Amino acid sequence: MGVPVAADGERYMRATVAYDGTDFWGFQVQAEGRTVQGTLEEALETITQERIRVVAAGRTDSGTHALGQVVAFRTMWQHAVSELHRGWNAVLPRDVVAWSLAEVEPGFHPRFDARSRHYRYTVWNHPVRNPLLRRRALWESRSLDLGAMREAASLLLGEHDFRTFGSPPKGTCTVRRVHRADWTCDGECLYLDIEANAFLYRMVRSIVGTCIQVGCGEMTVAEFGSAFRAADRSLAGPTAAAHGLCLMAVHYEGVP
Amino acid sequence: MGVPVAADGERYMRATVAYDGTDFWGFQVQAEGRTVQGTLEEALETITQERIRVVAAGRTDSGTHALGQVVAFRTMWQHAVSELHRGWNAVLPRDVVAWSLAEVEPGFHPRFDARSRHYRYTVWNHPVRNPLLRRRALWESRSLDLGAMREAASLLLGEHDFRTFGSPPKGTCTVRRVHRADWTCDGECLYLDIEANAFLYRMVRSIVGTCIQVGCGEMTVAEFGSAFRAADRSLAGPTAAAHGLCLMAVHYEGVP
Repeated sequence: MGVPVAADGERYMRATVAYDGTDFWGFQVQAEGRTVQGTLEEALETITQERIRVVAAGRTDSGTHALGQVVAFRTMWQHAVSELHRGWNAVLPRDVVAWSLAEVEPGFHPRFDARSRHYRYTVWNHPVRNPLLRRRALWESRSLDLGAMREAASLLLGEHDFRTFGSPPKGTCTVRRVHRADWTCDGECLYLDIEANAFLYRMVRSIVGTCIQVGCGEMTVAEFGSAFRAADRSLAGPTAAAHGLCLMAVHYEGVP
Repeated sequence: MGVPVAADGERYMRATVAYDGTDFWGFQVQAEGRTVQGTLEEALETITQERIRVVAAGRTDSGTHALGQVVAFRTMWQHAVSELHRGWNAVLPRDVVAWSLAEVEPGFHPRFDARSRHYRYTVWNHPVRNPLLRRRALWESRSLDLGAMREAASLLLGEHDFRTFGSPPKGTCTVRRVHRADWTCDGECLYLDIEANAFLYRMVRSIVGTCIQVGCGEMTVAEFGSAFRAADRSLAGPTAAAHGLCLMAVHYEGVP
């Protein structure tokens, strides 16, 4: 595929992966608990007989899902990439899969090279909970004003300090550029689609929790705007539950 | 609500219920195994302190879901119906819920009084399985010809003998009237929406399995038509998996 093989035969791979976050303790390997990263690495080891370290575009929390997470790893695999892809998916458990696997230029980094991320948050807005959406959507029984939530979300567009909606590691920059922040509905499901160059820790869930306060009349759009501009974490609403969130896609320069 | 209360104070109730069929051994109570009926009845007993028998519009198989199953039961409950509804949902586990509960005329029977049932079958049609749809959709990796499947399904419309797609109890009638049989798609998801006055045992799943044979070129639409008209169970394709099926609604005369 035109990708040079290093002298030692090491190859760089990029994969797009999907998972149901319900039964994982988040993406990143921890001292204990089943993680997406650990599961991906174990399956790769089974196929390649190598100890492989997987790096992701974003570390999703426990319960958060992905349809378009991007990971990268290095391997000494010398057979066809399609064989590694097939074998990997055959070994992976039912709640995680690799949509695609491709060889990339050495040095590709899924987090540092990403141009933007797209997350979707789903709210089931109905007086009664929905058993078929209990793993995928936050249940909100109060009637929500979608118009007000759309208005609030539109204030996020552009480059701003997002400190109100996320606490960063001390001293790091809290300015992010939001390209899209749209609430839509399909029947009783409400969706926030939000895309930004990068996100602070728990930023989407904090935005959702605060938008819901606007939607049920606990906060006006003007108050939402003031809280946002104040860049003060204490002014945000509650952080919405992790299981409503899904990482839909990560975009890269020159990758369609 | 204008519904007369019997002399002994007994009341008839109709509920619309939803459930995720994954962790149930079907609807109907069995010697062992967790069932939807048993779960609904236990929760009612907790609230009312009565031993209550629940009757359903249709007995779904193990793994099959419902968004609009209809059940009925008799109770001596003398408080507000809304209180029974709230208490029932509070006691029910996360994978089953009652959307609504209403008092009805004595003698209402959810199965015998039903005018029609609407089922939806979901197929994930992609080379790679989808972890987020693994409980809800059949995975079909071969590319399917939706046009041919639509054509096949349209042959089912009207009143016909459906013996090809379901084995009835001996000697009973196998003629059913299909009002709607439509394949649609949304991205990589294909949906069969089928509505009929009633269905034979496993009829929808048998139709889906045979339509998929048409979709992947193993059977022509003409062969599908011949198999259907032959009213011969041995000519049907395989029965599609239960977990792709969902009972969407049951319709009654005079109920909106």
